[in-house]
Amino acid sequence: MHVVLPDGKRLEVAAGATAADVAAAIGPGLARAALGARLDGALSDLMTPVHDGAQVAIVTKRDADDLLFLQRHTLAHVLAQAVRELMVAEGHAPGDVKMGIGPVIEAGFYYDFDLPRSLTPEDLEAIEARMRAIVAADLPLARTEVPRDAALARWRAAGDPYKVELIEDLPEDVAITFYAQGDAEAGFTDLCRGPHVPRTGSVTPHFKLTSVAGAYWRGDERRPMMQRVYGVAFGSAEDLERHEWQVAEARRRDHRKLGAELDIFVLDEDVGPGLPLWLPRGTVMIDELERLAKEMEDAAGYKRVRSPHLSKEQLFLKSGHLPYYADSMYPAMELDDVRYFVKPMNCPFHHKIYAARPRSYRDLPLRLAEYGTCYRYEDSGALMGLMRVRSMQMNDAHIYCTEDQFEAEFLKVIDLYLAYFELFGIDEYRMRLSKHAPDGLGKKYVDQPELWVRTEDMVRRAMTDAGIPFFEADDEAAFYGPKIDVQIKSAIGREFTLATNQVDFAQPGRFDLTYVDEHNQKQTPICLHRAPLSTHERMIGFLIEHFAGDFPLWLAPEQVRIVPIADRHVAPAHELVDRLAAVGLRAEVDASNERMQAKIRDAELYKVPYVVILGDHEVDDGTVAFRSRQEPERRGVPVAAFIDHLAAHARARSRTIEPLAT
Amino acid sequence: MHVVLPDGKRLEVAAGATAADVAAAIGPGLARAALGARLDGALSDLMTPVHDGAQVAIVTKRDADDLLFLQRHTLAHVLAQAVRELMVAEGHAPGDVKMGIGPVIEAGFYYDFDLPRSLTPEDLEAIEARMRAIVAADLPLARTEVPRDAALARWRAAGDPYKVELIEDLPEDVAITFYAQGDAEAGFTDLCRGPHVPRTGSVTPHFKLTSVAGAYWRGDERRPMMQRVYGVAFGSAEDLERHEWQVAEARRRDHRKLGAELDIFVLDEDVGPGLPLWLPRGTVMIDELERLAKEMEDAAGYKRVRSPHLSKEQLFLKSGHLPYYADSMYPAMELDDVRYFVKPMNCPFHHKIYAARPRSYRDLPLRLAEYGTCYRYEDSGALMGLMRVRSMQMNDAHIYCTEDQFEAEFLKVIDLYLAYFELFGIDEYRMRLSKHAPDGLGKKYVDQPELWVRTEDMVRRAMTDAGIPFFEADDEAAFYGPKIDVQIKSAIGREFTLATNQVDFAQPGRFDLTYVDEHNQKQTPICLHRAPLSTHERMIGFLIEHFAGDFPLWLAPEQVRIVPIADRHVAPAHELVDRLAAVGLRAEVDASNERMQAKIRDAELYKVPYVVILGDHEVDDGTVAFRSRQEPERRGVPVAAFIDHLAAHARARSRTIEPLAT
Repeated sequence: MHVVLPDGKRLEVAAGATAADVAAAIGPGLARAALGARLDGALSDLMTPVHDGAQVAIVTKRDADDLLFLQRHTLAHVLAQAVRELMVAEGHAPGDVKMGIGPVIEAGFYYDFDLPRSLTPEDLEAIEARMRAIVAADLPLARTEVPRDAALARWRAAGDPYKVELIEDLPEDVAITFYAQGDAEAGFTDLCRGPHVPRTGSVTPHFKLTSVAGAYWRGDERRPMMQRVYGVAFGSAEDLERHEWQVAEARRRDHRKLGAELDIFVLDEDVGPGLPLWLPRGTVMIDELERLAKEMEDAAGYKRVRSPHLSKEQLFLKSGHLPYYADSMYPAMELDDVRYFVKPMNCPFHHKIYAARPRSYRDLPLRLAEYGTCYRYEDSGALMGLMRVRSMQMNDAHIYCTEDQFEAEFLKVIDLYLAYFELFGIDEYRMRLSKHAPDGLGKKYVDQPELWVRTEDMVRRAMTDAGIPFFEADDEAAFYGPKIDVQIKSAIGREFTLATNQVDFAQPGRFDLTYVDEHNQKQTPICLHRAPLSTHERMIGFLIEHFAGDFPLWLAPEQVRIVPIADRHVAPAHELVDRLAAVGLRAEVDASNERMQAKIRDAELYKVPYVVILGDHEVDDGTVAFRSRQEPERRGVPVAAFIDHLAAHARARSRTIEPLAT
Repeated sequence: MHVVLPDGKRLEVAAGATAADVAAAIGPGLARAALGARLDGALSDLMTPVHDGAQVAIVTKRDADDLLFLQRHTLAHVLAQAVRELMVAEGHAPGDVKMGIGPVIEAGFYYDFDLPRSLTPEDLEAIEARMRAIVAADLPLARTEVPRDAALARWRAAGDPYKVELIEDLPEDVAITFYAQGDAEAGFTDLCRGPHVPRTGSVTPHFKLTSVAGAYWRGDERRPMMQRVYGVAFGSAEDLERHEWQVAEARRRDHRKLGAELDIFVLDEDVGPGLPLWLPRGTVMIDELERLAKEMEDAAGYKRVRSPHLSKEQLFLKSGHLPYYADSMYPAMELDDVRYFVKPMNCPFHHKIYAARPRSYRDLPLRLAEYGTCYRYEDSGALMGLMRVRSMQMNDAHIYCTEDQFEAEFLKVIDLYLAYFELFGIDEYRMRLSKHAPDGLGKKYVDQPELWVRTEDMVRRAMTDAGIPFFEADDEAAFYGPKIDVQIKSAIGREFTLATNQVDFAQPGRFDLTYVDEHNQKQTPICLHRAPLSTHERMIGFLIEHFAGDFPLWLAPEQVRIVPIADRHVAPAHELVDRLAAVGLRAEVDASNERMQAKIRDAELYKVPYVVILGDHEVDDGTVAFRSRQEPERRGVPVAAFIDHLAAHARARSRTIEPLAT
């Protein structure tokens, strides 16, 4: 038999050869460097047998991502072995140490255990020390294919019901494999489909156990609670350090924590999960974002509309949300024999507004915008702060245009995205062309195969012509057409799926939307769905984390806190508030009985950009003294100059402040 | 036996005496003038027997409203007689002329018929002529009390199933009375509880039949369709004329008609009744109203919040909306064993926001504002354009304050109302103190009798102290407390119930809302609910009718239409749009191929306040020529002066325009 190498060369190998044998056949140098393989494009370990005609590429240290995956997977086994050793060393019977699964996850790995006692954070140190010993022992990993009966017998004997269940659930045609590291006594054997590095010594030394937490077996709250030990692993000390900084930073910036501290939003048990209440400070941010969107959209020729939040069932049957989107919708309200639904999207309503008047080609493009609130019933387990909610106010718009206008309109939307990224200082973003999957036609995608291909081509061409980098992904489209999904990275490198620019070739036809063209013929417009500012929920969640609550002046809920030194300065403080308000700046006076330092600290907790101290000197001179989070402290600044300074930056929506000239 | 006269005097009368006998006993002058009576305060006719000790007042022409009621009622009978005569004259059998009911309504009366043929508008003239003949014949009306069996026999013999049904539905203890005008042959007898004027000649001559329309028997769509003939009647020719002008004007101004013509809103069958879609022009008006509210509320120290549109059932159980308000709510959405409701009011959410943070007396009054959208399931028959809808965006706010602050806060809200009335030119309004009814306690009102009395007193005192006129009405309160309802009159005298200012003593306690007072004690705040600008739906419906679509400049969806004379003036026209937009003015260019006169007509149809004509002369000189709906036509106005002129009026939200000085 033979295999095919990356350069296309055929290499003859013996029947039953493994990837390791192929590496050895290619050359001793590669065999020494080999730590894994890619068989027919999928990641495997060197122990994996190759089949006749297989495409084989050998993974070495140079293939960092692949290698890291293998190492993390092996580290999960090393972790399991270490925990078992620890338990046995403590005198527990090996049969009392039961194990679930141990997969690779983003940044690392975990393993689920059912143990005779609870692990504490302190145990992690001891476990990690044992792991390092196992790594230092450089145990070889051996892969064996085991008949189903033998595999079941092995784990039944070990008294491990989880492994037994896993084997029982495997389809009949799947080969069952064990991975053993070290010998039967000193080592460890696990049910696993691989892949792994060849020896425990081949894992990266840059790993760390991070936490232990409860997790239901198979995520099912009716099944036993396991103990899940998490670890991280990277190829270099720098990567590990950067990751740890990111994690700490993400914790510090967590929008749920800051959202509470900065009085931005709350969730309430009586209202329900995923249904945030916006406090006054959060509402200021919403209002500022809406003002921004309105300005940008006015300038770009959008027209604003408003639509109700619920509708009769027949609207969603017409749009196709029923049945294609039914899983994400709240259930019906039934009254007088009519079923009403809260809207999961605004589009059907905008289509109705389009259809409410006859349209001519002269009216196109027609761009209808609305910050519409939608309702989607996300699984309660999937809900997360503002990032995944059940009620969302969307920066929505629908652009109806001719096919000739499509490319220009599509790119104008992309330009709008880029303008927002610039404004918020988002330097890193990726655009993905999300396409349909042919086997989803008629199920999650409208069943018009030729239109799918054609519109996907149109989007691809528009993006390519404009020179905008993007990648493609199958089976990620909306039910009515392909879309560009935008992934952005926050200041600390966290990824957010922000918003989409979608082409809709299905709904305009379903809604009988037409326009009369130059030749007096009825035509069906194309529709673009777009939401560059995403939803208020996700956008503000992102902005909190991106800016760590230190918002640019224009977005800060409270822009100036005024601290009068004595009671006689309270009236002038309120006058200053009025002068600031007259140019649209938001200021508050702290007239409480607290000491001045306490007042300044309070303003700092709210991350108020400017704290103005007002005493005799300032009131007499008509000046202010201020501290700022974004420029050096100053005294003796004439009030008018201070107000102009702030107003100019707020108006320009500057991200940083040009310090006031002295 | 005796009766008591309005001056308190006792008058001896014979047993079985009628009101007419009392009038005759008082004096022959009054007997001649008498046209009806008030017995124990209720309106009756002179034929009504009086009982021992009855309070009796005689109705004459001077008691215009009472008299008009009696006359309208008698006119309904005259109408019925005329229709029967017409049918019989046409050869129909009297038994084929069946009759329903004929009550007095606002401005007139109607009668429902089941006839052998359909009436046409042309028939109304003939019927009215017959009515005038019956009036001229001055037939006396006679009232007789008839035993139930005899009454049933009479109408069964006449073959009238409707009258039979009415008699059968009367409670056993109610006396059945017939009213006959004229004799059995030439005249007409009806089942009726009265009251009436004594003779057909005593009705006002200022009556008119207005229309005929279909109406289901007893308003039930499963019962037969009757023909309803409407008439109006007034005490003077002037009153009738004014009413006819109002009706015509109301028809011309009908917000449903103008709302469609001006592209303000549409209703759509697929979306559902009572769920308007706002077109771009309507959305501009909404945005302007919200900007107005935000400015006024910012200046008055309100803070804005946002709340979701649905919630778990338990929130509304806590608030008391379930069960007190359940009839007006959409039904539940049930999912994962939780029942969700769309909100009928915003208050429970604002209470939750209040409760989200500890509050001190220093934080009060706390005024939380939101243009929140509520959903109320109105009966489909009650829906009417924008006036009665099922989805409404409310100018809502809740003010939490101490009892000491109550009066000042309450009156500040009233001041806000008055400021809006001034802005919109609403000169006529009435304020009603809507109180509870003791027998509704525990059913439609929370069951705290002493708190009802106390808060009703608080409101009464606040209004009285401030010298604001109001009247009182029982059984009109909100379920949680008394309120001031505001009725306004539009420019044509149509009444609208606009908005309410409500005191809530119940919900703060139910939600455990507290603040810490000066003595470090927990106290419960009072809550005011208020919505001076009502809902967008009702407010815009009102404004359309009030202004007949000729909105003040600031509120006009399109403020300036620019008509370029030739193609070469299109670019300068767009430049002018940009200059206007830079100061926030909304302008559009009509660059179509239509002739100039057609373009001007089109702008007039949309009631655009200013139409600017742009030709060589204007472009060369940097001037504009304009036509306005609110000031004289002008030419040669420098562009800058024109823009300043409009911007100043829009900024000031002026209702009228001070013509540009020449």
